[in-house]
Amino acid sequence: MMDHPLLIKTMLNRAYKLFPKKEIFSRCLDKDFRYTYGDFYERVCKLANILDHLRVKPGDKIGTFAWNTHRHMELYFAVTCCGAVLHTINIRLFAGHLQHIVNHAEDKLIFIDDDLVPQIEEIADELTTVEKYIIMTDQESIPETTLSPVFNYERLVGNASPSYDFPDLDENTTAALAYTSATTGLPKGVTYSHRSTYLHALTLCVPDAIGISERDVILPVVPMFHVFSWGFPFSAALMGSKLVLPGRNLSPPALCELIEQEKVTLVPGVPTIWINVFQHLESGAAYDLSSIRYILNGGAAISKTLVEAFHKKYGIKILGTYGMTEASPVVLTCPPKSYMDEWEEEQKYELESKQGRLLPGLEMKVVNENGEEIQWNGNEMGELLLQGPWIASEYYHNPEQSAAVFKDGWYHSNDMVTVDGEGYILVQDRGKDLIKSGGEWISSVDLENKIMAHPAVVEAAVIAIPDQKWQERPMACVVLKESERGRVTEEDILNFLKDKVAKWWLPDKVTFIDEVPKTSVGKFDKKLMREQYA
Amino acid sequence: MMDHPLLIKTMLNRAYKLFPKKEIFSRCLDKDFRYTYGDFYERVCKLANILDHLRVKPGDKIGTFAWNTHRHMELYFAVTCCGAVLHTINIRLFAGHLQHIVNHAEDKLIFIDDDLVPQIEEIADELTTVEKYIIMTDQESIPETTLSPVFNYERLVGNASPSYDFPDLDENTTAALAYTSATTGLPKGVTYSHRSTYLHALTLCVPDAIGISERDVILPVVPMFHVFSWGFPFSAALMGSKLVLPGRNLSPPALCELIEQEKVTLVPGVPTIWINVFQHLESGAAYDLSSIRYILNGGAAISKTLVEAFHKKYGIKILGTYGMTEASPVVLTCPPKSYMDEWEEEQKYELESKQGRLLPGLEMKVVNENGEEIQWNGNEMGELLLQGPWIASEYYHNPEQSAAVFKDGWYHSNDMVTVDGEGYILVQDRGKDLIKSGGEWISSVDLENKIMAHPAVVEAAVIAIPDQKWQERPMACVVLKESERGRVTEEDILNFLKDKVAKWWLPDKVTFIDEVPKTSVGKFDKKLMREQYA
Repeated sequence: MMDHPLLIKTMLNRAYKLFPKKEIFSRCLDKDFRYTYGDFYERVCKLANILDHLRVKPGDKIGTFAWNTHRHMELYFAVTCCGAVLHTINIRLFAGHLQHIVNHAEDKLIFIDDDLVPQIEEIADELTTVEKYIIMTDQESIPETTLSPVFNYERLVGNASPSYDFPDLDENTTAALAYTSATTGLPKGVTYSHRSTYLHALTLCVPDAIGISERDVILPVVPMFHVFSWGFPFSAALMGSKLVLPGRNLSPPALCELIEQEKVTLVPGVPTIWINVFQHLESGAAYDLSSIRYILNGGAAISKTLVEAFHKKYGIKILGTYGMTEASPVVLTCPPKSYMDEWEEEQKYELESKQGRLLPGLEMKVVNENGEEIQWNGNEMGELLLQGPWIASEYYHNPEQSAAVFKDGWYHSNDMVTVDGEGYILVQDRGKDLIKSGGEWISSVDLENKIMAHPAVVEAAVIAIPDQKWQERPMACVVLKESERGRVTEEDILNFLKDKVAKWWLPDKVTFIDEVPKTSVGKFDKKLMREQYA
Repeated sequence: MMDHPLLIKTMLNRAYKLFPKKEIFSRCLDKDFRYTYGDFYERVCKLANILDHLRVKPGDKIGTFAWNTHRHMELYFAVTCCGAVLHTINIRLFAGHLQHIVNHAEDKLIFIDDDLVPQIEEIADELTTVEKYIIMTDQESIPETTLSPVFNYERLVGNASPSYDFPDLDENTTAALAYTSATTGLPKGVTYSHRSTYLHALTLCVPDAIGISERDVILPVVPMFHVFSWGFPFSAALMGSKLVLPGRNLSPPALCELIEQEKVTLVPGVPTIWINVFQHLESGAAYDLSSIRYILNGGAAISKTLVEAFHKKYGIKILGTYGMTEASPVVLTCPPKSYMDEWEEEQKYELESKQGRLLPGLEMKVVNENGEEIQWNGNEMGELLLQGPWIASEYYHNPEQSAAVFKDGWYHSNDMVTVDGEGYILVQDRGKDLIKSGGEWISSVDLENKIMAHPAVVEAAVIAIPDQKWQERPMACVVLKESERGRVTEEDILNFLKDKVAKWWLPDKVTFIDEVPKTSVGKFDKKLMREQYA
């Protein structure tokens, strides 16, 4: 067989050659923008010429600090196909972490959306490797800025040549770099190769993963600075799927309007988004969302209550997904098996609120504290270990953290899970979020889902509080619907839980809060909460 | 990223771990057989132990001489996952070629279906490397045979241990070997790696290729000795699709009964099969074939008339595919693009009778006699060149033939094609089958399809006959329906063609024959016809 590499270039060429008429829609700050993969390819070539002109060399790290727009999409392909390394910087990190990761990655250039310039200005003095800043704006001129030297993306690209001969790289060439959103310590970097990116993008497309085709219209709500928007921009180009890039406005009305207007079929995002969209629909806002094949939930668990309510009230199916920065990111998706069509409704919704089963191409092991594989019976709990061509083997320039997590050829996820008899995984907790009460484990995620089934509850986070007798005990922090605040009591919540969990799982305390504190990627910040309530 | 290999073992493990309840149905000589991927995995492990016991070493070539049955499927996985090389021998080759390929491959063992033993007995004296013969039979004892030493598959496997630790191979390890069905010269061998086999199997599953999922029930009519049944057994295991293996009886009633009985969704095979099935349905035989998603046509072109008739009369969609031994084999499939839903019916059927567009992961170039790329306008014709991770880079131990076909990093297919503006390919002819009349090309395939649109015609083959004035002229060899024989004349055929082709395309002669001679893989044997009619 030919020694033919798996490259991101293959995805770009396919979009250009077979799907030049298909559209990319992009919501910019000042106006909506629409073009085709044909136009896109030409702009990617122009951008590649500009990268050469800016003396970008193979292996150079190129930072992006941007929303989900067509320009970010152009950077995804131009940077990687040139042989440089795309570093998507999480715009939600605080200044100390931002500065750390830009310096740690040794970014040479940073491409910045115009409204995000102030965040980079704030840290610019501390950046040791950045040579130039390129601002992406719809305006003729670039905004007033202290950054220097600074260039206008459109002016650079507008004048460049529209053809480029992308190199034939080794498939193991590093294509991209992303940092985890650390809840403890500093963010850790993960590098992705052309091979891993290609295999991940292709595998997402098979029906038993998500089933992405040219017929799909994909609206990635998940930011392009969160592990490549879970890989959807790459899968879209490979399959010629229309892309709808929502820019910075992720409010429920803006999203619902876009879905209706562009007839979106797949919408990936985190549960907070779907909780907000659901509440917006419940408030009486009416849209035609019938084009949706799946809401793709990821980043954190979604409650069975919400899965069921979306389906019953609005005919919308939710497909669970699960992954992490270390896994490119998708590891599990949750399509039912054909014979589950015969299952009871209740059992189906329970399945659909799980994280799912392993994607083809990966290997997994779920082990208990003694390193023994657990039974697939839905009860035994263990840590999920992973292997595969899109699983990291180390953290970037970080041997100490790497040694703790990548052991014996396996990535140790620190996620505690159960596996049912059909191979579907339910994440019970992050290792450190599990509550150990009197020698027995309590799953905070499970308790949260049960509390969130209460009709007055919007969100609930359960954390461990130290206990003299039991070592740890659960405490619930509950956000009520505005109309219910002051009306629902701790006792109501405990009464509601009574016939749903074992007696010793009942939280020792229920406290009502206005909002669950979240990390920069929208997950519950339990570390912060534990500190607050310790 | 982890250096994690793409292996056939991954497909086997996935079938076992996630789909142990899904079925494999197998029609054997004496009885129907049905088991699950769970049982299958155990038998594959037993077989692997037997291979060890028979002293099979990594890289050893293991021949199979068998129909589409569960035992052949077991060999597909046990041989390859052990690190040995599966050599599927085409049972339709004549003795001289059979003997050549077994010796050229240096097969160490041959596994033989009981009714095929006589064919091997005939050549056994000439086989220089075969050490043992294993006969696959439902009988208690093995049939009387001159082969020696000879073993009974079931007796060997029945006593073996049901667990086996398959090795972690390099992904470029050779997994399999197949020989082309030579119409000129000796058959040429192509080796397939674990990587190529995995990528081919995965890519077939994406919706824009074929879209294979756990929900599919696949009946490979195409023999497992024809380039691995076009890869379907591997895709089926990877996705957990139910497999229906039809054994040796491929008669239209047997196939239609199986489709109805097992609720088959995908049926890959060559056009001769579909012509026969259509005629069987036309004769009034009634089956419920509504489970079919696609008949997958490959191996040769199918006429638009038949595509249209299958759809209009029986509601059955045909999906075009195209490939060759040198390409694992699938290169093109023919799903329409979403915006083609708006097309006129006529235009759709025309599209559906094409071979299709390039699978994701491959690269192609279509070049004219000067090596320049042709325009994608549906008119210009050129030779299809291919690159990709499942395209061969050479013939096995055959430097001379390799040098003629694998040049400048491209596989030269010798297929003359046009590409339309949407990237869909129509094969006009094998290079040597094109007819050059007065300096202009005539496509024999195109003429054949137009003749086959005549209601009285079953099959038609067009060949070039030497001509003093024009160099070459077309001659048509036509098979009429039995009821029409003696009633339809040469003039009728020419009149029918008159308003469908340019005047100079009209055949100089139409001759009526009882059957078009075919090669061992069911293609028109034009070389033989040219010799007969020269």
